[in-house]
Amino acid sequence: MSQFRCSRSRIWMDDNMSDVQFFEGVEKLLEIWFSTNDNNSKHADLRKIPRSRLESLLKIVRCEIISFCSNDQIDAYVLSESSMFISKRRFILKTCGTTTPLLCLQPLLLLVEQYAGFTDVEDVFYSRKNYKRPDLQAAPHRDFYQEVTLLDAIFPHGSAYCLGSMNRDCWYLYTLNPPRTNALSSETEPDPDQTLEILMTDLDPDVMSIFTREECLNAAEATKKSGIDKIVPNMVIDDYLFEPCGYSMNGVTKSGCYMTIHITPEPEFSYVSFETNITATSYREIVNKVIETFQPGKFMVTVFTNKTSAAVGAPKEIQNLTEIGSWTRRDMQHICFKNYDLTYAFYSKFPS
Amino acid sequence: MSQFRCSRSRIWMDDNMSDVQFFEGVEKLLEIWFSTNDNNSKHADLRKIPRSRLESLLKIVRCEIISFCSNDQIDAYVLSESSMFISKRRFILKTCGTTTPLLCLQPLLLLVEQYAGFTDVEDVFYSRKNYKRPDLQAAPHRDFYQEVTLLDAIFPHGSAYCLGSMNRDCWYLYTLNPPRTNALSSETEPDPDQTLEILMTDLDPDVMSIFTREECLNAAEATKKSGIDKIVPNMVIDDYLFEPCGYSMNGVTKSGCYMTIHITPEPEFSYVSFETNITATSYREIVNKVIETFQPGKFMVTVFTNKTSAAVGAPKEIQNLTEIGSWTRRDMQHICFKNYDLTYAFYSKFPS
Repeated sequence: MSQFRCSRSRIWMDDNMSDVQFFEGVEKLLEIWFSTNDNNSKHADLRKIPRSRLESLLKIVRCEIISFCSNDQIDAYVLSESSMFISKRRFILKTCGTTTPLLCLQPLLLLVEQYAGFTDVEDVFYSRKNYKRPDLQAAPHRDFYQEVTLLDAIFPHGSAYCLGSMNRDCWYLYTLNPPRTNALSSETEPDPDQTLEILMTDLDPDVMSIFTREECLNAAEATKKSGIDKIVPNMVIDDYLFEPCGYSMNGVTKSGCYMTIHITPEPEFSYVSFETNITATSYREIVNKVIETFQPGKFMVTVFTNKTSAAVGAPKEIQNLTEIGSWTRRDMQHICFKNYDLTYAFYSKFPS
Repeated sequence: MSQFRCSRSRIWMDDNMSDVQFFEGVEKLLEIWFSTNDNNSKHADLRKIPRSRLESLLKIVRCEIISFCSNDQIDAYVLSESSMFISKRRFILKTCGTTTPLLCLQPLLLLVEQYAGFTDVEDVFYSRKNYKRPDLQAAPHRDFYQEVTLLDAIFPHGSAYCLGSMNRDCWYLYTLNPPRTNALSSETEPDPDQTLEILMTDLDPDVMSIFTREECLNAAEATKKSGIDKIVPNMVIDDYLFEPCGYSMNGVTKSGCYMTIHITPEPEFSYVSFETNITATSYREIVNKVIETFQPGKFMVTVFTNKTSAAVGAPKEIQNLTEIGSWTRRDMQHICFKNYDLTYAFYSKFPS
């Protein structure tokens, strides 16, 4: 586990009043599942892509690897801007700031073909919350329509969605949503899959101050003091405390599940993201722990589940939660895709 | 019932091959519910607004009244571009082509205050499908974000949504979605309300040819020949066949329910809309009749219901319809608002 120091670069801006700095905590999240159309799937593995090639790929994205841990099932990287998870056939790249992950898409597909032995893209999920400062992003990430244009040029059956209020807080998603084939055809059952994400803004300044070098000497202290280590037990944790502030952590289980948390603590633009794919029949307890830990003013929850997932009932559970503690639901949407159900809910402390 | 002739103005455009004409069938749909904050609600009535004032209002929208029918509950107007329905406290304006209905919003609110005796806007629904040719629209209707900017300047708790695929077929909605007040407060139960809309494209040319002066002498003949008169029985129908083609109809019931159909029959840009608020516990039969009547290549269904509506189970019914006859569902979304449940579904003939 490498532990060299790295500063997440803050953008300094002129303001009428004074010079203020800004950092966009909101991440772009790219998840791709690969498959083979022949019998070589046994040997195909994304982890065959050499580290040097991954490093070159991340240069295009404008970030770098700062820490790494792995087990038989998954490679987990902490990046200068968020995280990357690579398992046999699933690639996840989550990057904040002004990074450009969609620019690495074509090179990534080439690397996968060259080194990993996969022939097909089985599914794609590109998602993000609306930015606080879209004007500071680099092309094509300034505007969702531009991002969609890039994705549409690569994927023939991609569909773009906006969940939540387009003029307030919302969440964009691009995914493959191919036409349903004959319902009677005997398609193979998909691998169980589920993802829970909680994106939080307007966080409690006292909690946020934990994630500064002023209050904590190192990441381990911040992880423990905040209670992050208690959210999902039995995770091997790789955490990182940035200079002068900011925090990232990856957690992995022996079975290959992951969790990841990224924190932008500055009160003017505080943001925390939580994501996991751990198997559970209910996410209620995790959601409670996360929001009690970070005390956001507002947060959005998204839950993806496919039909073979143990969490298949989790979207319905979120749909029934009009209140969670002192947070009231402001928006709720549900989308039914060919292979996945997705529920989006947005909560804020009352009164908003 | 006035029956003067009127041509819906087609826009002629230069094409590489030849001069082609175009008409945007897709409507902008504005529905506003008014209320009073005092005891004058008994006397308040939108139908007190003089006809001359409505005509001036519609000049701002760039359309005019071409036919009218009414009963104790509702005034129904056929317009040069679609329809207008006015009942005691609900105003509905649905206009196609390059009309500008949002520009009449402020003048309408003034008229309502001056003549109708209402003090408050209780709810607003502004919706439309994505246009076939957004570039031909006039400001602010070219872009949904521009429309939202105008609406946001008037309504403090407005929220904007996009349902369906933003890069394919989608449906935009702006509505009031105020924060929930304490769940235990004894708010008065809302009036039962429901709206079913079916927006169809790529229609059967043989069916569409009915709605031309070449094939039918008058509107009554087109209404009967197409089977429109059998979709919802016991409606008083006010229909209009345009020169050289195009069709509009309003239907009203004694109880004040309405239905309205608008048809742009040209094969290059065929479009049919169906809308009704009739009370039913199931919309399955109406949906079937409508799509069997018009034979669209693609269509979207939207169902709004509030908690006191008899149709409260209708959204769930649509959510379970993955196939309707030879049409397969491509998209399904559900939004839970404070006062309404909304389901959106998009179907296309297989293979798409």
